[in-house]
Amino acid sequence: MSSKKYVYFFAANQSEGKAEMKNLLGGKGANLAEMCNIGVPVPPGFTLSTEVCTAYYDNNRNYPESLKAEVEAAIAKTEEVLGKKFGDPKNPLLFSVRSGSRVSMPGMMDTVLNLGINEEITEGLAALSGNPRFAWDSFRRFVQMYGDVVLDLKPANKEDEDPFEIILEAKKEEKGVELDTDLTTEDLKEIVSEFKAEIKKETGHDFPEDPMEQLWGAMSAVFGSWMNDRAITYRRLNGIPSEWGTAVNVQAMVYGNMGDDCSTGVAFTRDPATGKKIFYGEYLVNAQGEDVVAGVRTPQPLNDSTKSDPSHTTLEKLMPKPYGDLVEIYNKLEQHYKDMQDIEFTIQQGKLWMLQTRNGKRTAEAAVRIAVEMEKEGLIDKNTAIKRVEPEQLDHLLHPMFDPNADTNIIAKGLPASPGAATGKIVFHAEDAEEWTEKGEDVILVRIETSPEDIAGMHVAKGILTARGGMTSHAAVVARGMGTCCVAGCAEVEINYKNKTMSINGKVYNEGDWLSLDGSKGEVIEGKVPTIDPELSGNFGILMSWADEVRHINVRTNADSPHDAEVARNFGAEGIGLCRTEHMFFEGDRIKAVREMILADDEAGRVAALAKLLPYQRDDFYGIFKAMHDLPVTVRTLDPPLHEFLPHDDENQQIMADEMGITLEEVKAKVEALHEFNPMLGHRGCRLGITYPEITEMQARAIIEAACDLKKEGINALPEIMIPLIGTKAELKDQKTIVVDTANKVMEEKGVKVDYLVGTMIEIPRAALTAHEVAEEAEFFSFGTNDLTQMAFGYSRDDAGTFLKEYISKGILADDPFQTLDQTGVGQLIEFGVQRGRQVKPDLKIGICGEHGGDPRSVVFCHKVGMNYVSCSPYRVPIARLAAAQAQLDFPA
Amino acid sequence: MSSKKYVYFFAANQSEGKAEMKNLLGGKGANLAEMCNIGVPVPPGFTLSTEVCTAYYDNNRNYPESLKAEVEAAIAKTEEVLGKKFGDPKNPLLFSVRSGSRVSMPGMMDTVLNLGINEEITEGLAALSGNPRFAWDSFRRFVQMYGDVVLDLKPANKEDEDPFEIILEAKKEEKGVELDTDLTTEDLKEIVSEFKAEIKKETGHDFPEDPMEQLWGAMSAVFGSWMNDRAITYRRLNGIPSEWGTAVNVQAMVYGNMGDDCSTGVAFTRDPATGKKIFYGEYLVNAQGEDVVAGVRTPQPLNDSTKSDPSHTTLEKLMPKPYGDLVEIYNKLEQHYKDMQDIEFTIQQGKLWMLQTRNGKRTAEAAVRIAVEMEKEGLIDKNTAIKRVEPEQLDHLLHPMFDPNADTNIIAKGLPASPGAATGKIVFHAEDAEEWTEKGEDVILVRIETSPEDIAGMHVAKGILTARGGMTSHAAVVARGMGTCCVAGCAEVEINYKNKTMSINGKVYNEGDWLSLDGSKGEVIEGKVPTIDPELSGNFGILMSWADEVRHINVRTNADSPHDAEVARNFGAEGIGLCRTEHMFFEGDRIKAVREMILADDEAGRVAALAKLLPYQRDDFYGIFKAMHDLPVTVRTLDPPLHEFLPHDDENQQIMADEMGITLEEVKAKVEALHEFNPMLGHRGCRLGITYPEITEMQARAIIEAACDLKKEGINALPEIMIPLIGTKAELKDQKTIVVDTANKVMEEKGVKVDYLVGTMIEIPRAALTAHEVAEEAEFFSFGTNDLTQMAFGYSRDDAGTFLKEYISKGILADDPFQTLDQTGVGQLIEFGVQRGRQVKPDLKIGICGEHGGDPRSVVFCHKVGMNYVSCSPYRVPIARLAAAQAQLDFPA
Repeated sequence: MSSKKYVYFFAANQSEGKAEMKNLLGGKGANLAEMCNIGVPVPPGFTLSTEVCTAYYDNNRNYPESLKAEVEAAIAKTEEVLGKKFGDPKNPLLFSVRSGSRVSMPGMMDTVLNLGINEEITEGLAALSGNPRFAWDSFRRFVQMYGDVVLDLKPANKEDEDPFEIILEAKKEEKGVELDTDLTTEDLKEIVSEFKAEIKKETGHDFPEDPMEQLWGAMSAVFGSWMNDRAITYRRLNGIPSEWGTAVNVQAMVYGNMGDDCSTGVAFTRDPATGKKIFYGEYLVNAQGEDVVAGVRTPQPLNDSTKSDPSHTTLEKLMPKPYGDLVEIYNKLEQHYKDMQDIEFTIQQGKLWMLQTRNGKRTAEAAVRIAVEMEKEGLIDKNTAIKRVEPEQLDHLLHPMFDPNADTNIIAKGLPASPGAATGKIVFHAEDAEEWTEKGEDVILVRIETSPEDIAGMHVAKGILTARGGMTSHAAVVARGMGTCCVAGCAEVEINYKNKTMSINGKVYNEGDWLSLDGSKGEVIEGKVPTIDPELSGNFGILMSWADEVRHINVRTNADSPHDAEVARNFGAEGIGLCRTEHMFFEGDRIKAVREMILADDEAGRVAALAKLLPYQRDDFYGIFKAMHDLPVTVRTLDPPLHEFLPHDDENQQIMADEMGITLEEVKAKVEALHEFNPMLGHRGCRLGITYPEITEMQARAIIEAACDLKKEGINALPEIMIPLIGTKAELKDQKTIVVDTANKVMEEKGVKVDYLVGTMIEIPRAALTAHEVAEEAEFFSFGTNDLTQMAFGYSRDDAGTFLKEYISKGILADDPFQTLDQTGVGQLIEFGVQRGRQVKPDLKIGICGEHGGDPRSVVFCHKVGMNYVSCSPYRVPIARLAAAQAQLDFPA
Repeated sequence: MSSKKYVYFFAANQSEGKAEMKNLLGGKGANLAEMCNIGVPVPPGFTLSTEVCTAYYDNNRNYPESLKAEVEAAIAKTEEVLGKKFGDPKNPLLFSVRSGSRVSMPGMMDTVLNLGINEEITEGLAALSGNPRFAWDSFRRFVQMYGDVVLDLKPANKEDEDPFEIILEAKKEEKGVELDTDLTTEDLKEIVSEFKAEIKKETGHDFPEDPMEQLWGAMSAVFGSWMNDRAITYRRLNGIPSEWGTAVNVQAMVYGNMGDDCSTGVAFTRDPATGKKIFYGEYLVNAQGEDVVAGVRTPQPLNDSTKSDPSHTTLEKLMPKPYGDLVEIYNKLEQHYKDMQDIEFTIQQGKLWMLQTRNGKRTAEAAVRIAVEMEKEGLIDKNTAIKRVEPEQLDHLLHPMFDPNADTNIIAKGLPASPGAATGKIVFHAEDAEEWTEKGEDVILVRIETSPEDIAGMHVAKGILTARGGMTSHAAVVARGMGTCCVAGCAEVEINYKNKTMSINGKVYNEGDWLSLDGSKGEVIEGKVPTIDPELSGNFGILMSWADEVRHINVRTNADSPHDAEVARNFGAEGIGLCRTEHMFFEGDRIKAVREMILADDEAGRVAALAKLLPYQRDDFYGIFKAMHDLPVTVRTLDPPLHEFLPHDDENQQIMADEMGITLEEVKAKVEALHEFNPMLGHRGCRLGITYPEITEMQARAIIEAACDLKKEGINALPEIMIPLIGTKAELKDQKTIVVDTANKVMEEKGVKVDYLVGTMIEIPRAALTAHEVAEEAEFFSFGTNDLTQMAFGYSRDDAGTFLKEYISKGILADDPFQTLDQTGVGQLIEFGVQRGRQVKPDLKIGICGEHGGDPRSVVFCHKVGMNYVSCSPYRVPIARLAAAQAQLDFPA
């Protein structure tokens, strides 16, 4: 058999492990050893390495032969350090047993305290401490924990009651007391024997009285929990290999429950909510760790750093000496780990012991502040600061939030489709949203689903709620682009457009009623809730500037208006990666011209209608190019199927008929003629430009005319004309010819030359597969990963909500592929596209303009495959900038 | 400069070329040389090779330096053989100039006859022949042809009149004659001078009188026509590289127009319509080649082999000597080329000259008969016979046809969606089709479009006509599967369901009116047209048996009923590659149970409804497995979105509401809830089985129960259960687990074991890209190339009609990718799928079950990538068998 070392001892100056050995010892074990190494007081103990776990499962749930001797040796060393003996009633050593894998993992066995105890040892402990109640309380706690987590009597559902709690509560009632601490030693004795009886009843076995049996039972329960269903599911969803295994930490007990000179607590070295450099935490006198968490007694603040309340007794005041030690240690730990620490401690009879330290979780605000301030303090360098903030977290900093002190009545939950908070009066139609807003009202637009016709109303609404549609439905995509809060696909909402009412679980809400939405959480809230605007602190700006220095990949934005372009530029966008031209078609009189074009019977009729649109389009581009002067602007030619520009309900069809001077039947006939079974796969994108070349011609003319006009004013426009939905080289060639011919004509007319590119979206699988052909005609590629994902998976974004939720909950998919790029499948198509495109044109400019451009993991992928830029909605630009910087640090290009 | 040989002389015993030199000399030139080689009388001449053409274009439309000398030498050799001189009025040698590329190509310059003539030479020719009218007729023809094709005075549109014909007709009117042959020499002289005046007027130049100038002009016109627009388009559409170039044939004239002992004609060595071994052809006395084609005079039959008509004067009777020579030569040519020949000849003053021989085009019937009979005659071997028949042609042999002698009034044209001919009375509803058929009527079902609800009506109809939908619309796919004639997407048809009428170009047709459809041509014909049933002659069976001996790849069928399975088995199917289970859901009471399942609020309700369906499904499979005993049957689990099983119009929704005992509103609400924007990409395929596992369970149970029951009767069923629309390995694993668990349960209940496989469709791009993962769970792959094409291109089959036609006419796509597999793009996905699947499981059984399985070119592709089988609709099984044999001969596996 192997002579591998499986057990690592830790104690002051004697540790066999260190912080870098996380993979072997787990996070907790490595840090316990490290604290010992740097002179922090830690109760001694030992760690069974993750290799024990692996060996255990490789060997049909049997331990390595050498393990027993190693454990016994480690116990002996612990006994030696403390001068106590495990299982010796006269001077007992008790242990805590805790799991600890490389990364924190819910679903596994957590902690057993006070292990190595039985009635005889309890009595010994009572004698030794002179505190029988402490001894019996410890025994009571051990039997309960061991029963719960090792013998598995813990109820499977949170709703079901813990059998031990039932006994405990009954006893308190019987004795007429309220707190556990009010129970007497005798009460505790009764409780222990009732606990044991319950265990015998449920398991058929007596409670194990032998300390060594208890220890092996607890250690096996930890290893066993590595393979329980919850842990397996968690690992699958988070891509954690089961080979990693877990470690087990066996540590000498210290007691926070030995009397009023004892306490236990948790603390953060800086405020995890704000990042402020204060020592922040809570403690309980005469308690063990789980009491702080259980919330039966209210923990007290460590000091007055947050708020001073005379009813509080701070640790600083109550136990100034150990508090002073704690302050010294937290400073030491932060200096040593160079990050904000989340620590656990116990004070036993005035002596401070550290039980855990780890990097603390923190809010977005705190993360940014801590990273920047630590750099200023010289603790970390800029690159480390950049890596300290989760890009996704930044989202919270960029949108309004509800006042955290406000009461909220959540009446329904939908998808968190676009972050932020909004409050306003309910309206059900886009036109009403516009009308009410003009009158000075804040409105929430509530729709079964939205369509391009609703754009103007969506633009003015404070928030958008839809009953149907997924994270990438029209409402969600548009709202994110606008930075407007949106809750989508909220199935509980039943809408009656006619009566202008909606009902949620039976309760009816009328037009004009106040409603609030939390788009970050997907919550629908009754009534008005005050919101607070985000404050982009100076630290945020500093961190972003560091990120910009580091990153290689550019960040552009998806913007369709001068306003959006400006917003994005303020957020740091370096150009527009996707300017959709179709949104421009809906405003004001334009839609009439668009409809005239659609109704025209021949090319001449279409050309006449398009001539009316030309000045509008030119003005649009003029404004956008001006806002983005000196930066590239990728303009996509018309993409959606034409039926999207026609009204689909009787009322609006009649209005259109009247406007156009035709019959309702003619309108209906056209709508019917344009109806498609699967419009996503129908007559749209370049297919429109090929069958109606005059559309492409008008758009190319508008773009180049705007650029020429600006050039004459000394403003530099850099249009990149992008042809959508290309599947073959021939399509691109057809459209490119129209664009180039038109551009030449316009430049001659205007007497001025402008630079422009013609390129294509790669959003059809075939285009990615034949990128070496397509690249012959393309001056740039932009991956449209929304459509590419739709077609690679065969999922309609608008319809996938019905099964995608279930796919994710069943673990069939780890992520929604419309939110995080599917690198396994769709990623292959992107890699083909990049490699084959550059095979023909080594300098081909390549970017991404799907929703994924703002998803941090997807940004890393784009960086790795060698794209030149990502493009995302304005509000995600900072996220992409930070993700791009981290990508460069992790995978230097 | 190069010393390459550019000009190849041909004459009896002196030819420099041969048949194998087609690439260099073009088809015509190579065969002229070859005929000289085997002693067939051919007027001497020479061929400018295709390399001249290439050099001409490589060198900016300049000829190689050495060419002039080579041409002059070849002219001299021709003069020497004939004892005449080019350009010598006393004894003039005239030439014909003809193009001739490797493959026959429309759009290029064709022929100029009588070249090397002017007024002086005409007079010489008149003197020499003693026939001035002949001489002037020749000159007239030359000026006209040269003007038309070399000087390009031919009108661009067929509708426009030829300026020379206008002059000719005017002259005939002026002279009061009807036929060209009635014009006198003087008339011809006048015409010639008017022709020349017209040329001067149009081109600004005098007509070239110099024979050498004429010759270079004509040769340059041929080379120039290689790059005209029509030729370029034709090459692009047919994948012919422009580098091939064309050859030019310059050949001494012989005259069929010298008098009544002269004639010219065309013939086939066997009947091209039936394949019968008779010598078949037509001729005209005193005429030149173009007269036979022009149709001014009616050509006469060569002999009485076809039908004897006393009004005819056969060549056999009129000129027995040259006819005898012709018979001898045709036998010689057929023996030499070992294929049926299409020949052109001229008899000048009793002497026979051959001007062309090539393999003759033929009907399907003739192709099969000739191939089989030539093998029996020992001319060719079986492999050659197999390669002599175009697989696609066979289609005509498998369906009814209109009586070729019937008059037809074509009132509209649609897509030839499913071949065959049908005649019947118009009905507009599927139920009416059933009702009328029961009463003994033949019906044509006319619909705007069909849907799965119409299946029963489609089954009984003789033919199906739809106003909308492409070659792969529901109507087209189902009709082909059934072998029912269908014309789809006929936009001229306007249907009024309410009045039960349709109008075509203003004329109204009522229910009950007779209508006929030619599904092979896409024609809609007014009234009743008699049809004749196909006769699958013995030769057909023989050829098929030879194909079966050769091919490596199996041919299965797509069949959903015992009847279809039997039809296909008779056509040679070796199993079922796709049995769709959803069609079974529509019949009779089943649809009620299906709807109960859809309406059920919970799993229990669905399970109860599915229990009602189980016996039906089991019976379905029992019948199909029995019909296909000992052969594999691939059953696909439920694929279409559930809304397809609900009625979409008010009337049927009310009926359903009444049947189910619920309100119309409830039905409508369910339909609305199931509505999808893009159902093709929605909640269907395995996504149904994953969200409703009970559906998969019921289907697996039905399949295995049927197989077990048959096993007990001693009948061997080989079910292969196929999960559709898999995009990830996890999906397949989920469904496979249900199938295997259910199968084990059923086999235990039945006390019998059966063999079965569980596999998957590869129809989602992601599945193909991750085939190495998917294969870990799959026992077989079947490429669903319909959906794979839809998703790879982003085309909806049901909607692509709007632009695909234009794509093909513009040359953006060479073929409809739903008919012929796109090997460039979709083909890559298939290759990935095959390679990566077999990388994990080297023996993985792989097939194809899309429409492409019956397309010959696609079958070749499937063979080449190493599939085990193709599967296609029953009526295409013979086509696939032949294509598979040819694939093996061309690309031996």
